[in-house]
Amino acid sequence: MAHDTRQAVFEKELVERREKIHRYLLSGEYAQRFSPPHIREAVYSYICSGGKSLRPAVLLFSCGAVGGDENKAIPAAAAIEVYHTWVLVHDDIIDRDDKRRGGLTVHEEWRKKAVELSYQEEEARHYGLAVAILAGDVQHAWAISLLCELCTRCGVSPSLVVRLIENLETYVINSLIEGETLDIQFSRAPVESLSEEDILKMLLGKTGVLYEIAAQAGAMIGLETMDSKHPLVEAIARFSTNCGIAFQLQDDILGVIGDEKLLGKPVGSDLREGKRTTIIHHAFQKADRAQRQKLLRVLGNRSATEEEIGEATEMLRSLGGIEHTRDLARVLIQQARGHLQPLPPSEYKELLLSWADYMIEREF
Amino acid sequence: MAHDTRQAVFEKELVERREKIHRYLLSGEYAQRFSPPHIREAVYSYICSGGKSLRPAVLLFSCGAVGGDENKAIPAAAAIEVYHTWVLVHDDIIDRDDKRRGGLTVHEEWRKKAVELSYQEEEARHYGLAVAILAGDVQHAWAISLLCELCTRCGVSPSLVVRLIENLETYVINSLIEGETLDIQFSRAPVESLSEEDILKMLLGKTGVLYEIAAQAGAMIGLETMDSKHPLVEAIARFSTNCGIAFQLQDDILGVIGDEKLLGKPVGSDLREGKRTTIIHHAFQKADRAQRQKLLRVLGNRSATEEEIGEATEMLRSLGGIEHTRDLARVLIQQARGHLQPLPPSEYKELLLSWADYMIEREF
Repeated sequence: MAHDTRQAVFEKELVERREKIHRYLLSGEYAQRFSPPHIREAVYSYICSGGKSLRPAVLLFSCGAVGGDENKAIPAAAAIEVYHTWVLVHDDIIDRDDKRRGGLTVHEEWRKKAVELSYQEEEARHYGLAVAILAGDVQHAWAISLLCELCTRCGVSPSLVVRLIENLETYVINSLIEGETLDIQFSRAPVESLSEEDILKMLLGKTGVLYEIAAQAGAMIGLETMDSKHPLVEAIARFSTNCGIAFQLQDDILGVIGDEKLLGKPVGSDLREGKRTTIIHHAFQKADRAQRQKLLRVLGNRSATEEEIGEATEMLRSLGGIEHTRDLARVLIQQARGHLQPLPPSEYKELLLSWADYMIEREF
Repeated sequence: MAHDTRQAVFEKELVERREKIHRYLLSGEYAQRFSPPHIREAVYSYICSGGKSLRPAVLLFSCGAVGGDENKAIPAAAAIEVYHTWVLVHDDIIDRDDKRRGGLTVHEEWRKKAVELSYQEEEARHYGLAVAILAGDVQHAWAISLLCELCTRCGVSPSLVVRLIENLETYVINSLIEGETLDIQFSRAPVESLSEEDILKMLLGKTGVLYEIAAQAGAMIGLETMDSKHPLVEAIARFSTNCGIAFQLQDDILGVIGDEKLLGKPVGSDLREGKRTTIIHHAFQKADRAQRQKLLRVLGNRSATEEEIGEATEMLRSLGGIEHTRDLARVLIQQARGHLQPLPPSEYKELLLSWADYMIEREF
C-alpha cells in the first residue's frame, strides 16, 4: 500500500479506537459517580476536549499485535487515557498554563466560573485551584478503578490486574514526577549547563514511560502473561517508548513553528516559559555570542514581544535546532520500527508501524 | 478488668500497632522510590509527625477479631494510613491550613523552605503548592501499591486485593470528596439553613467512610472473603463508621475547648474558619437574638480577637452545644458497641471496644 493510503486507513482506525474509549468513559454509570456537578464537569473537561488518544490506541494495537482480543483490553486503554489526564490537570496547575487543546485549563476555567459567580479575585483563583486538585484526584482514582474492571468485566486474571496496577503506581508515577521535576529544575538552569542526554532523560520520564506502560499492558493482556520480560512484551514496550519520546520532540517542534489554530495553544509559549528543548540546546551550541544573548533575552521572558519571538524562532531554524530535533525524532522512529521485528506480520503490526509514523508526521 | 487498666492495656497495644506500621512505611525500599529529595521529605512529613494511626489499628484489630492473622493485613493497614495522609495533604491546601500535628502543613513548610532559598513571595507560595500537590499524588499511588503487596507478599488472594482497591477508588474517594465539598459549601451557608442531619452526613463522608473501609478491609482479609455483605464484615464496618463519626465530634469539641499544647493546633480556629459543627448548630438553635449576633460576629471572622473567641466559647458551653455534641458522640459509641454483638468473644473484640471508648475519651 502507498504511504498516503496506509496513513488514511490508519487514521480511520485511530478515530474508531478513540470513539470506542470515549463511549466507554462517557457511559452514565461513571458520570453519576462524580459529585458535586462542578467536580463532575471538571473530571470530564479534558476527556471531552478531543485529545488524540494515542496512548489508548497503542495499548489496543499492542494487544492485537501479539494475538490478543483488543476488546478485552478496553478498560485498560480507558484507564491509561484517564491516568494521563489527571497528570495533565495537576501539571497545568504547577506549570501555570492557562490553555490546553484550544480551551482553558481546568484551574483557569473554574477560576473564571467563580469570577462569574462574583467571587473576589483571590477567592476565585483559590476556587479554580481547589476544583483542579480534586478533579485530578478523582481521575487518578477512576483510572485505577477502570483497571479493576479488567477482571470484573473482561475476564483478565486478577493477578495480572494487580501487576498492571502495581506498575502504574510504583514505576510510572515516580518517573512522571521525576520528569516533571527535572523539567522545572532545567528551566531554571543555564542552557549551557545541560546536555542533550539530560533533556532526553527528562522526556523519557515525562512522556516516554506512559507510552511504554501502555504498550506493555496491551501486550501482557493479549498474551495473558504476567511476565513483563516476555520477548514480545519487551519488544513492543521499547518500540512505544521510542515513539513517545519522538512524539514529544515533534511537540517541541510544533511549539516553535506549528500552526496556532491547529494546535489550540499559542506558538512561542515554550520560549516564553523558558522550556529546555533539544531545539534550544542545539541552537545554543551553534550560536555565537551575539546570537546567544539575543536568545537569552527571549528565553523564559514572559513579556517577550511577538517580534522578539519571531526573531528567536528564525534563529532556532537557521542555527539548525529544528532540523536537528527532527533528525533525532526520525532516528528514534527508525529504531522503534526495528524493535517490532520479532512480531509476526499482521494488520495490527501494520497499524503500530503507521502509528509510529503518525507520531512525527502530525501537525497538531 | 477495671476501665482504667483496660485502657492502659489498650494504649500499649495501640502504640505497638502504630510502630509496626511506621516500621513498614519507613523501610528503605520505599524511601528510595521517591525522588527528588524535597518530594521524598514531603511524602514522609505527616507520616513521621506522629498521627494516632487509629485507622490502621481498627483494620488490624478487625482482622484479628474475625479470627484472621493480623500480620497478613499489615500492608493494608499501612495503605489506609497513607491514603488518609494524601487526603490530608490536599485538603490542607484547599482549606488553607498552616498547621497540622504541631508542625507546618506541607504546602506551608515548603513555601517557607523556598523563602529561605530566596524565592520571591509569590514564587515561594507556588513552590509550596507544587510540592504539596505532587507529594499527595505520590502518596495516593503509594497507598494503592501497598494494597498490591497484600497479594505479592502476604498471600492474600489477588481477587480480594482487586476488590479492596476498587472499594477505595470508587466508593471511598467519592465520599471523601463529597464530604469535603459539603464542608466548604456549608461554611458559606447560613447556620440556620442547615440541619443536624446535614452536618452528620458531611462527617460521614469526610471521616466515617474511611473508618468503615478500614474495618471492612481488615475483616475481609481475616475471613478471606470477597463478600462485603458477610454478617461479620457488615457488623464490624458499621461499628467502625459510628466510631469514626464520634471521633470527629470529639475533634470538634477539642477544637473549641481542648488544650492547644496537646492538640498542636490553635484552639478557636474552627470558629474563625466558620466551620459548621453540631456544637455551633445546637448553640445557635438555643440562642436568643443578641447571642446569635455575637456568635455571628466571630463565626468565619479570621480576624476575631482572643477575647471574642473566649466569649463565643463560653456561649457555646452555656447554650449546651458542647454537652449536646458529647451526648451525640456517646450515643454513637453505644450503638457501635451493639453492632459488635455478633462477634465471638476474644482479646481482639476487647481491643475494638477499648478503641471505641478511646475515640471519644482522648484529649488530643
